[in-house]
Amino acid sequence: MRDDKQFYNLDTKRKSRRLFGEVVYGENKAPAHLKACIEGLLEAQGDVLITRLAPETYEKLGELKERLDYDPLSETALAGTKKEPVGSVAVVTAGTSDGKVAEECARSLAYFGVKAVPFYDVGVAGIHRLFERIDAIGGCDAIVVCAGMDGALPSVVAGLVSVPVIAVPTSVGYGASFGGVAALLSMLNSCAEGVAVVNIDNGYGAAYMAAEIVYAIHQKTRQSVSDKKA
Amino acid sequence: MRDDKQFYNLDTKRKSRRLFGEVVYGENKAPAHLKACIEGLLEAQGDVLITRLAPETYEKLGELKERLDYDPLSETALAGTKKEPVGSVAVVTAGTSDGKVAEECARSLAYFGVKAVPFYDVGVAGIHRLFERIDAIGGCDAIVVCAGMDGALPSVVAGLVSVPVIAVPTSVGYGASFGGVAALLSMLNSCAEGVAVVNIDNGYGAAYMAAEIVYAIHQKTRQSVSDKKA
Amino acid sequence: MRDDKQFYNLDTKRKSRRLFGEVVYGENKAPAHLKACIEGLLEAQGDVLITRLAPETYEKLGELKERLDYDPLSETALAGTKKEPVGSVAVVTAGTSDGKVAEECARSLAYFGVKAVPFYDVGVAGIHRLFERIDAIGGCDAIVVCAGMDGALPSVVAGLVSVPVIAVPTSVGYGASFGGVAALLSMLNSCAEGVAVVNIDNGYGAAYMAAEIVYAIHQKTRQSVSDKKA
Amino acid sequence: MRDDKQFYNLDTKRKSRRLFGEVVYGENKAPAHLKACIEGLLEAQGDVLITRLAPETYEKLGELKERLDYDPLSETALAGTKKEPVGSVAVVTAGTSDGKVAEECARSLAYFGVKAVPFYDVGVAGIHRLFERIDAIGGCDAIVVCAGMDGALPSVVAGLVSVPVIAVPTSVGYGASFGGVAALLSMLNSCAEGVAVVNIDNGYGAAYMAAEIVYAIHQKTRQSVSDKKA
Amino acid sequence: MRDDKQFYNLDTKRKSRRLFGEVVYGENKAPAHLKACIEGLLEAQGDVLITRLAPETYEKLGELKERLDYDPLSETALAGTKKEPVGSVAVVTAGTSDGKVAEECARSLAYFGVKAVPFYDVGVAGIHRLFERIDAIGGCDAIVVCAGMDGALPSVVAGLVSVPVIAVPTSVGYGASFGGVAALLSMLNSCAEGVAVVNIDNGYGAAYMAAEIVYAIHQKTRQSVSDKKA
Amino acid sequence: MRDDKQFYNLDTKRKSRRLFGEVVYGENKAPAHLKACIEGLLEAQGDVLITRLAPETYEKLGELKERLDYDPLSETALAGTKKEPVGSVAVVTAGTSDGKVAEECARSLAYFGVKAVPFYDVGVAGIHRLFERIDAIGGCDAIVVCAGMDGALPSVVAGLVSVPVIAVPTSVGYGASFGGVAALLSMLNSCAEGVAVVNIDNGYGAAYMAAEIVYAIHQKTRQSVSDKKA
Amino acid sequence: MRDDKQFYNLDTKRKSRRLFGEVVYGENKAPAHLKACIEGLLEAQGDVLITRLAPETYEKLGELKERLDYDPLSETALAGTKKEPVGSVAVVTAGTSDGKVAEECARSLAYFGVKAVPFYDVGVAGIHRLFERIDAIGGCDAIVVCAGMDGALPSVVAGLVSVPVIAVPTSVGYGASFGGVAALLSMLNSCAEGVAVVNIDNGYGAAYMAAEIVYAIHQKTRQSVSDKKA
Amino acid sequence: MRDDKQFYNLDTKRKSRRLFGEVVYGENKAPAHLKACIEGLLEAQGDVLITRLAPETYEKLGELKERLDYDPLSETALAGTKKEPVGSVAVVTAGTSDGKVAEECARSLAYFGVKAVPFYDVGVAGIHRLFERIDAIGGCDAIVVCAGMDGALPSVVAGLVSVPVIAVPTSVGYGASFGGVAALLSMLNSCAEGVAVVNIDNGYGAAYMAAEIVYAIHQKTRQSVSDKKA
Repeated sequence: MRDDKQFYNLDTKRKSRRLFGEVVYGENKAPAHLKACIEGLLEAQGDVLITRLAPETYEKLGELKERLDYDPLSETALAGTKKEPVGSVAVVTAGTSDGKVAEECARSLAYFGVKAVPFYDVGVAGIHRLFERIDAIGGCDAIVVCAGMDGALPSVVAGLVSVPVIAVPTSVGYGASFGGVAALLSMLNSCAEGVAVVNIDNGYGAAYMAAEIVYAIHQKTRQSVSDKKA
Repeated sequence: MRDDKQFYNLDTKRKSRRLFGEVVYGENKAPAHLKACIEGLLEAQGDVLITRLAPETYEKLGELKERLDYDPLSETALAGTKKEPVGSVAVVTAGTSDGKVAEECARSLAYFGVKAVPFYDVGVAGIHRLFERIDAIGGCDAIVVCAGMDGALPSVVAGLVSVPVIAVPTSVGYGASFGGVAALLSMLNSCAEGVAVVNIDNGYGAAYMAAEIVYAIHQKTRQSVSDKKA
Repeated sequence: MRDDKQFYNLDTKRKSRRLFGEVVYGENKAPAHLKACIEGLLEAQGDVLITRLAPETYEKLGELKERLDYDPLSETALAGTKKEPVGSVAVVTAGTSDGKVAEECARSLAYFGVKAVPFYDVGVAGIHRLFERIDAIGGCDAIVVCAGMDGALPSVVAGLVSVPVIAVPTSVGYGASFGGVAALLSMLNSCAEGVAVVNIDNGYGAAYMAAEIVYAIHQKTRQSVSDKKA
Repeated sequence: MRDDKQFYNLDTKRKSRRLFGEVVYGENKAPAHLKACIEGLLEAQGDVLITRLAPETYEKLGELKERLDYDPLSETALAGTKKEPVGSVAVVTAGTSDGKVAEECARSLAYFGVKAVPFYDVGVAGIHRLFERIDAIGGCDAIVVCAGMDGALPSVVAGLVSVPVIAVPTSVGYGASFGGVAALLSMLNSCAEGVAVVNIDNGYGAAYMAAEIVYAIHQKTRQSVSDKKA
Repeated sequence: MRDDKQFYNLDTKRKSRRLFGEVVYGENKAPAHLKACIEGLLEAQGDVLITRLAPETYEKLGELKERLDYDPLSETALAGTKKEPVGSVAVVTAGTSDGKVAEECARSLAYFGVKAVPFYDVGVAGIHRLFERIDAIGGCDAIVVCAGMDGALPSVVAGLVSVPVIAVPTSVGYGASFGGVAALLSMLNSCAEGVAVVNIDNGYGAAYMAAEIVYAIHQKTRQSVSDKKA
Repeated sequence: MRDDKQFYNLDTKRKSRRLFGEVVYGENKAPAHLKACIEGLLEAQGDVLITRLAPETYEKLGELKERLDYDPLSETALAGTKKEPVGSVAVVTAGTSDGKVAEECARSLAYFGVKAVPFYDVGVAGIHRLFERIDAIGGCDAIVVCAGMDGALPSVVAGLVSVPVIAVPTSVGYGASFGGVAALLSMLNSCAEGVAVVNIDNGYGAAYMAAEIVYAIHQKTRQSVSDKKA
Repeated sequence: MRDDKQFYNLDTKRKSRRLFGEVVYGENKAPAHLKACIEGLLEAQGDVLITRLAPETYEKLGELKERLDYDPLSETALAGTKKEPVGSVAVVTAGTSDGKVAEECARSLAYFGVKAVPFYDVGVAGIHRLFERIDAIGGCDAIVVCAGMDGALPSVVAGLVSVPVIAVPTSVGYGASFGGVAALLSMLNSCAEGVAVVNIDNGYGAAYMAAEIVYAIHQKTRQSVSDKKA
Repeated sequence: MRDDKQFYNLDTKRKSRRLFGEVVYGENKAPAHLKACIEGLLEAQGDVLITRLAPETYEKLGELKERLDYDPLSETALAGTKKEPVGSVAVVTAGTSDGKVAEECARSLAYFGVKAVPFYDVGVAGIHRLFERIDAIGGCDAIVVCAGMDGALPSVVAGLVSVPVIAVPTSVGYGASFGGVAALLSMLNSCAEGVAVVNIDNGYGAAYMAAEIVYAIHQKTRQSVSDKKA
């Protein structure tokens, strides 16, 4: 059988090329490969984020478990020194059942060093819940909206704010929701502008995009301040 | 070649079985067959409604044209004595481009003897337009909502009213709207209850369903009044 | 980990805005969140309906189980005072296998205070079973038809009655039924008018729509009686 | 440019291997290739059937036109001596708009030497039209049912007869009929047994299958008669 | 909870209307309903066929098991007096993995009193296996071809015979076979005529159609013989 | 016929609520409605952008044409005072054929007052063309990548930069590109993070999202400068 | 309006990196851009191939037309010195209607300097046509098989030869062929090994792949000969 | 119950007709049938390869297990004398999670007597990993690229080499990857030429195609050497 080391090829220099280092996708990996990836990145980068780490996979990690901050709802694990958060991202959900995806987003933001502000269960079936919070939501640097079923919430939010909305379709629903496809299509066809979409249930991907926006604001701000000061 | 009369089989007694008589679907019919169907029903029923009657097909109807009230936007034609309208149905659209489908609905309602109240271009991109009219919309006996793109409007409307919402996905949009499929799926997955859906662009079908609801209310009302009076 | 209370946001005032209060969707919720939603609504509304409550989830509800009237076939639970039913809705199924969805509908109607009249296993493979009952079916205020496989039954029923038909595609079937998609498409394309469709297996949604129709008839009737009397 | 003769390869001996000779599919062929195929088969077989021969393509056939019996509704052409028909096949349509496909079937049957009996426009929206004719339909050797939209008719017919039903979904309909897909899926999932399906709008294919059934009955009958007589 | 008897409605007179009596579909039925259906039909008809009866469901049937001839591969059960077979149907498979569907077909044919002749594992990857048997296959009254993956076998068979081919797509395959959709589409588009298709994995439906063809030949034969003799 | 004014409902106050005013979608509108929308917004807002304005529709605008800056490639028209651009957005295309969509984006950015920097025809078939420009691309505030066919370019770009990538699938391609679906799915599944997706061919939507990001950077920068200075 | 030169970016050094130079895709390009691409590559490479060049687009090329060898059936144009062909590729079609795609392949092979051997119209409906030619087909270096409808031919061919088969699904067919999807899926699921698939109607892509195989054989052969000689 | 021997029909002479003997597909076979197929081929051919042999199926093989070289990651088993490898095929993966499919390919190549050279985890998210290895990859006789998610890697590889690329979409990914469909479509639409595609997760099929290419080079080389020497 092939040597385990032939299966992976860590991109330990990613931080020098991009904003953040390599993150481990926890699905479909043999336990030995998964463990080696986590340990390798933790050593090279000083911190690591693992997504899609199901509880039964987590249990197979042995002693490595002790070094990880694991959350079974979002199936994410973090390790390494925490960053002081900059900026703010509103993480909005249509319903309680979208919480799993929202937390994958919120915890990824924490790992990236960005503040996540939760606004959960404010879907259009009881739209007053959204209106009561819309100023706080629109005051963040970017907005992530997680919704399944009809996927209508991002359109409504985007029509009321001036900051970018990143829409995350969730697989919540049944029948003709087709595992999130209904919400995905709804979001791609948002009649309100300012919505861009990531993959179904991809809370992590939304966090990355939002973090890039926050860093762009933050870094340019500092730069321009330095420039002006100079 | 086969005799034209072998191709159709008018259901001239439909009014005795159902609420309304047979209606002519104007597409995919040879002109001779179409003409014969219109004339046959007009004679048997005293009135007739033709849907999906494209302008170029209408032009082929010859002298029959003079007997028809034709509207090129909705591609519908009516003939026969008009009924005094009962009840009221709100016909709501998300955008101006949905007008074609909404008018198919409104004119069908007129043919059925039901009052159609238009609330056009009140989509969620400028949601205050809806809120300003929601009491008038919710005060009707039933609501038809026509929307393309994200199909989000029926969910929002249904969350704010107590009467049945019939949702009509329209083929307005492009790309991943897939000719109305995105709106259709969104509506089938409405997170607000009280929404049922008809086929894409089927303004006529929504009108029929709404008219059945209005008649049920109207007839029962009269009955109960008679009962009480007796 | 995030405080459980941040995950839900009960809409306890929904009854003042709509016909019925908030209902709990039992899937995809962490047990602690589900329990809190049921208890919160029961307290605020005096009654509650839970749908999609699988037996294994029900078992996790602890003492709360004693307060619930649970039916494992339909996976629904009710709590609170029962209403005296008004009106009548025919609940029709094509086959015995559609019983699960039909019962979700019938029990939801009971919760809404509407009488459900069952006509089960009358599909078109033995169409005389339908014809023997069509007068009783057509005499109800509204009709819910649940069918999988070819989804042909709503078309046949609608062609014979004058009241609205709400069609529920069920996921009964195999192969190219695609989990109810064949029935869904068939129903959306019903050649008989007066059919509107809800999501696959959505017996609850059909019940809500039917109840709105029954209430509209009932309330208007009472109003008009009062008006006339006055 | 390549010599035209390299593009086709007539199967002039097909009649020795199968029940009928090669038939020309009129679409997507360069006019020179199409003409050569028709002429070659006419010479080799003594007769020929061309399907999917659009009027504008037919016009390009020049003098060959005079040798063809062309029907623009069904877009079929026949040439050669007609056969005395044996057996009988009921050709049933749900609506007038399905006539084009039904005539492709009926004319193919005529070419194969089988009697086609038309029962057009007897769809389930006015189901009494079907019941009045069901004995005549069920008395044929086989039944072809053409239907678009909900595709419900084959299920209803099959539930009432003892002979094989060949279902032809037609592309009649709009929106979520998806060019005949809704009818196709409905037919594949027929809750009544004894239905097999051919491609959308494939009246010709249904005729071929039905003719094979008729010939099987007819030939075996003659054989068994000869056997017994011997 | 609702009385079990309200859930089913046996069509015990089906044999008087169609060729065969009602058959029980074993999926998605509560055990009590399933048992009652089997017992009711056995009593009324003297025999019964149950399809899609998974081993774990079979085990729940209690004492009824002793009255059934159960085959776990095809998941079918039969009860009642066996019929003397008439005619013959070739049951052909592309590969060994299609055996489950083929046996559902063969056992249903046995129940219907028709002889099934197996030709298994003769797919186009080793096409000589087919050619060695094609005369025997083509000598049957009808042919059922079961194939998954590319679904190419029915086209090849039909091009070599003069009897009707009923094609059964099977869900054998992976990836872009999409549970039998690839084979289904291939079969619907057969370039050889004389192929009609039933639902994916529907061996039973193919048997029914084939049996109708065999009976049509057999009955007419006897009739014509009687006619001639008289 | 209904008065034209009932069909539209301009949201003339949108600029007060969002970053930019209402934009006119030029498809599916009756010419009278389209003209009225353009004129109404031009008057209320002082400027206007029209997208999806096909040349033949543009020709129907009469005298209004003179007030519009029309580009037939991108099918966009602008009117009103131009803004001094802030920030910069890289507009990248995979091939020359994507130019239509890219120009819809670039001209929308111009209307929004943001600088668009074109990097066209740098797809992965000749990937050195991208690498030669990657520093310039990554130095912009945001990146819009338009690609059809395999949609691979956004993944490659995102893997090399630290700013947000907005991916626009285009309908360039044939066969199994399905009008842009292949590219859309590829982009939603980007293995490099930092990609969010808009609808197929939606250059305008990408521009809006990018402009929101640029304004966020720009406004915060100015604020922070003011803060520091104060 | 943007300068035309900004829209394209010729990869004139492709021949140094790959086996062949850049080829022009003739669809979706503005005429000025198309012309510039052809001229630029002709100058840089000495020859050029244009695919998907519809006759009406070709007509817009002005004087450039005289330098092109244009074939309207395959919609391809070539220019520059012809190469002496090496190796051989069998180009097989199921039917005459697939000729357009096959010729795109054959002419591309000619441009690449590879001999194309045509075997057209040998589909499985008359499978003896294939068997008569299978030795000649299997004797080529590689095989391209073009087929629409059921797409069964590549499976049959691959089961009989020892050289790689490149399958090209064509959009020939109707109804549930879905523009070539049925053939595509059939080919991806070939039960005979040794089949790989290119995009629907992509005769050019198949030619490229086949040419790479031929060159690999040819070059290695020459190398090994030189090696041995040395 | 039917005799097991009727279910299979080994093609023991396949090696005389094709390059390699029959291979056993381990899914969907009854254990007795599976065992008999393996033993029969092992006896007739002297070696055998089994694919899709899940660990739990492997466990059911009893004593036969001892004769097999089984790898649980790739779910393949080999038996018989190993061949001395000829040529070389690069087996490339985008990520560690694609290892399972890549190993099915590599082990099949070993069985076919071809050298597999692994280049794993070199996806476009860290594209420098690919560039560092591109010369070694391009120096092989053929290249197999396995990728899930966006399926972008084969396009990038093909744009940089002169040998054929066989792309294997893998089912790695979630949400809108649809079990490998996103990668499949991306690969079919590769903007770089020289890519042909096999079924999702079909590492074995890619190995077969690659081996045919290697053998073609190898055999012709030897032939031409012999020719020259003669």
